[in-house]
This record gives sequence, C-alpha cells and structure tokens, in this order.
Amino acid sequence: MSELPKKILIVGLGLMGGSYAMALSKKGYDVYAISKDEEDIVLAKKQGMIVDGTTCVEKGFVSSFSLIIFALYPNVLVSWLEENSSMIKDGTLLTDVTGVKCSIISGVKKTLKGKDVDFVFAHPMAGREKRGIKYADDGVFKKANFIVVPTEGNKEENIKKIELLGQELGCAKIARLSPDEHDEMIAYLSQLTHVIAVALMDAKDNTHLADYTGDSFRDLTRIAQINEEMWTSLFIENKKKLIDQMDLFLDEMKLLKEAIENEDTALLKEKMKESTRRRSMFALEEEKRK
Amino acid sequence: MSELPKKILIVGLGLMGGSYAMALSKKGYDVYAISKDEEDIVLAKKQGMIVDGTTCVEKGFVSSFSLIIFALYPNVLVSWLEENSSMIKDGTLLTDVTGVKCSIISGVKKTLKGKDVDFVFAHPMAGREKRGIKYADDGVFKKANFIVVPTEGNKEENIKKIELLGQELGCAKIARLSPDEHDEMIAYLSQLTHVIAVALMDAKDNTHLADYTGDSFRDLTRIAQINEEMWTSLFIENKKKLIDQMDLFLDEMKLLKEAIENEDTALLKEKMKESTRRRSMFALEEEKRK
Repeated sequence: MSELPKKILIVGLGLMGGSYAMALSKKGYDVYAISKDEEDIVLAKKQGMIVDGTTCVEKGFVSSFSLIIFALYPNVLVSWLEENSSMIKDGTLLTDVTGVKCSIISGVKKTLKGKDVDFVFAHPMAGREKRGIKYADDGVFKKANFIVVPTEGNKEENIKKIELLGQELGCAKIARLSPDEHDEMIAYLSQLTHVIAVALMDAKDNTHLADYTGDSFRDLTRIAQINEEMWTSLFIENKKKLIDQMDLFLDEMKLLKEAIENEDTALLKEKMKESTRRRSMFALEEEKRK
Repeated sequence: MSELPKKILIVGLGLMGGSYAMALSKKGYDVYAISKDEEDIVLAKKQGMIVDGTTCVEKGFVSSFSLIIFALYPNVLVSWLEENSSMIKDGTLLTDVTGVKCSIISGVKKTLKGKDVDFVFAHPMAGREKRGIKYADDGVFKKANFIVVPTEGNKEENIKKIELLGQELGCAKIARLSPDEHDEMIAYLSQLTHVIAVALMDAKDNTHLADYTGDSFRDLTRIAQINEEMWTSLFIENKKKLIDQMDLFLDEMKLLKEAIENEDTALLKEKMKESTRRRSMFALEEEKRK
C-alpha cells in the first residue's frame, strides 16, 4: 500500500494551503510551509497547523522534502517553479490545488523539463467565499470531491499517493479526470455559476431591494462575494472552455426569452419540466452519496 | 385596532392555500375552504387546517364570509371571479396571494366593477419547490416578507386588516409597495432567478456531472425544480417587466464575456469587487433583521 512521506511542504498559506496544513497536521504529518507573508507563518505555527515555515525560498530547505503541495494562484504557480524548480530534489512528488488544469499543466511541464520529479495535478473541489489563512478550515473537505488529473509520464504509484492525499484530507470522493474533462466540467459547474452570480448582482442597483430578498436571490448570489484576484486568473486560464459554456447558457436564456415574448407556454412548460427532471436526479444522486 | 373576522374563506387549497389555512387555524380562526379537489378538503379537515370545505361554489356558502382569501394561480383567479363574483356579499374584504400584480389587478377590477367589495392585493414572499396541500407548511412564513399592494379605492382600514393578516400568518416583515414597484422587484429578485436556474440546468446534458456538483451549482439550480404551471403563468403575466430584467442581466453577461475574451483583467476585477461589495451589504442587511 502506498504511503505519504511524514514530512510535507506546502507552498502558499492562503485559505486552501492553510486548510491542507490543518487537515494534514491533525493526521500526524509534519507540515512545513513557505509563504510570502511572515504573519501567516506565525499564525499557522501558533495554531499548530505547521511545525515551522519560512518566507525565504532556500535550496537547503526545499530539497529536504519529497512531497511538495503548491497552494498558489494559477498565475503564481508557474512563475514560482520558473524561479525555484532547481531547488527541488530528484524523485520528489509534486502536486497542486489549482482550479484549472490544461493551461497550468503545459506551463508547469515546461518549467520541469528534464528534471526527475513527478507532478501529479489535483483539485480539491472545496473552498469558501473568504480568503486568507485566518479562514482556513479543514471542514471544507468533508463534502468535497478530490479530483486527480493524471498526465503523461505520471507514475501510477504516485497517482495513488495523491489519491491517498485526498483521503487523508477527508474528502468525500476521489475521482480521476483528464485535463480536458476537468476543465470543461469546472467551466460549467463552477466558473459559469460564478459569472452568473456576479452578473446578477451587478445587473442593477439593488441596494433598495435588500428588504425583499428571498431565498432564491440569496442562493444565486452567495458566490457573488468573490476573490477577484483568484477568479480573474481562473477565468482567463480557462478562457476558451468558459466562453463555450457561457454560450450554451446564453443560448438557453435567449430561447426562454423568446418563449416568454411569444407567450409560448408549451415550450416554457417543457423547459421547466426538463429542468425539474434533471434537478430531481441531482438530488437523488446526492442522497445516494450521504 | 383593526381585527379580522373570526370566519375566513380560502379559495384554493394548494401549497399556499393550505399553508394559510394551517397558520390561521392555529391562531384560532374558523377557516373554511373551496377547492376543486375533494381529496384536498378531506386531508385539510383531517389535519385540522379547516373546519369544513366544499367543491361546490354556492351563493349560500360564499355569501356567509366577510373575508375571502384567493390562493389561486394568476390565470385562474380572474376567471373564478368572472364566474362567481355575484355570490360575494356586499362589504366583503377580498385578498390574494398572487406573485404578480399589475395584470391581475386590472383583470380582477373588471370582474368586480360596481360591486361593493374591497380587494386588497397581497403577496406573501414565501413558498417551496413542491406543490399541493400535502406540502403545506406554516413555517414558510417565518422568514417571509408579506407585501401589501394597495390600489385606488382601497379603504385604509381594510389595508390595515390585510397587514394584520400578514402578521397573523407569522411573516417576518410587512411592507407596502405599488403594483409597479412590486412587479419590477419580483421580476428581478424572483422571476429572473428562476429563469436563470432553468436555463443553467437545461443548457447541456449534465447527468454525468452529478458526481462533481459543488455547493455553487447546487445553490444556483435548487429552484430549477419548479412548478411549470404556476411559473409559466407568472412569467407571462409579468412579461414586459421580466424581459426588461432579463435584458439587464444579459447585458451584464455580455460585458463579462467580452472582458474574458479580451483578457481585460482590470474590468473583471472591478466587476467582482462591485458584486462582492453589494453582496456583503445584503448579508449585513439580513444580519440586522435577525
């Protein structure tokens, strides 16, 4: 059976890096961290999330780990590796938490060309609307899917280790997807929903309507409270697939708009019956997993 | 102080009629009902929601009430009054639960022309995705806004009585809006959100994605499980205002789409900051009301 090394390095102590650190420390791993912010290290140490950490990226430190988890924004991950990949020792297993894969994978692979390391990409489908380590919470993994995205050259043994990492975090389900499958799925289920929430909130001045907000508006706009740095980067990195999914949605909106304009009640009812059928199936699927 | 008559007639025993009956019976009122379905009356009587009910609309019965609540679909309400308004006795106070107002009001007023009755329109902003009296639940009013929509000719005394009705149901907040204000608010906060949920669910075959659904997709599609009879009627009755709100939303979607296509990160961040600011204000407003 595969096992993770006892000593783990996490690069990046934001919400996700902190949540990983919290979960893995509780499981008995010796977690160390690199962060650009001294304060985050002090907080993480004080709360027992990490054994120790540093703001300096030094070869002596980095090369002492055989498992490194990158919890960085997509645009930061590649540049970190460009600068520092020479410090990683041979045979090291690398992984990430990034919410987009295709663009990241090609960027990362370039920086590691010729090196004897194995980067097994992963995406914990978990998060919160807040940002920063002070909101770190290993509870976010409880209902989360942990997606492993194997790529050419990954050793099966290492893929299994990253699946084990998902289990150790406490994720509800571990799945494998190709980079394309992952990015299309995430464009539809996650990125499109965030675009919709932002658009709905920004569509008009709604402050005076706060008094009348019901459950539906509340639910649809919850994720309009959004980390603009991270999501802008995620949207741009997955641009083509996100635009495709937005077009599918916009076509459907146009169709519904025409049906309302033409008072085509038959089509409206058909569309609502279909959405009801699909949503019921989703609810059933979720029940099964409980 | 205004007081409601002890004997109340509810026309229509669906989810909303049943929930009214349940809440008012618990408050000690003698609730009677007219329903097209004998079974619903049997169930409502058995569960103590009503004293008695009938499927026959008879003058002797209808004229024995001085407060009648119509819990009918918008397209049914007007035709019910066309057929039966002659049975209503002079001085009776009438109200409704309909989710759209402008179109209903003009239809209703025509049927009551020359009669000595006062129809004070109201809309309890409460509901569930289910339909039918078996899902009736007076708990739906607990966090709900009760909107009273006064129109020309309403006596202030009667408007106050309908506000009292909202209190008796247990609604969290009672407000007054004009028909136009009500319909624009509801088009944006409630109808547009339902159109979006249906469009998102119907945009593509997503059955195989059920495994990866996260909170955001779950929240945005919850209301895609929808009563197609009622909502088709609501959309058509409020057609013009709903289309206006859809256009505002679609313009915003187009703007975000262009920003993603052009990799205009500055605009994307600005839009997300604005949605975050507005959503935080909403959350604050809701906190205040708790």
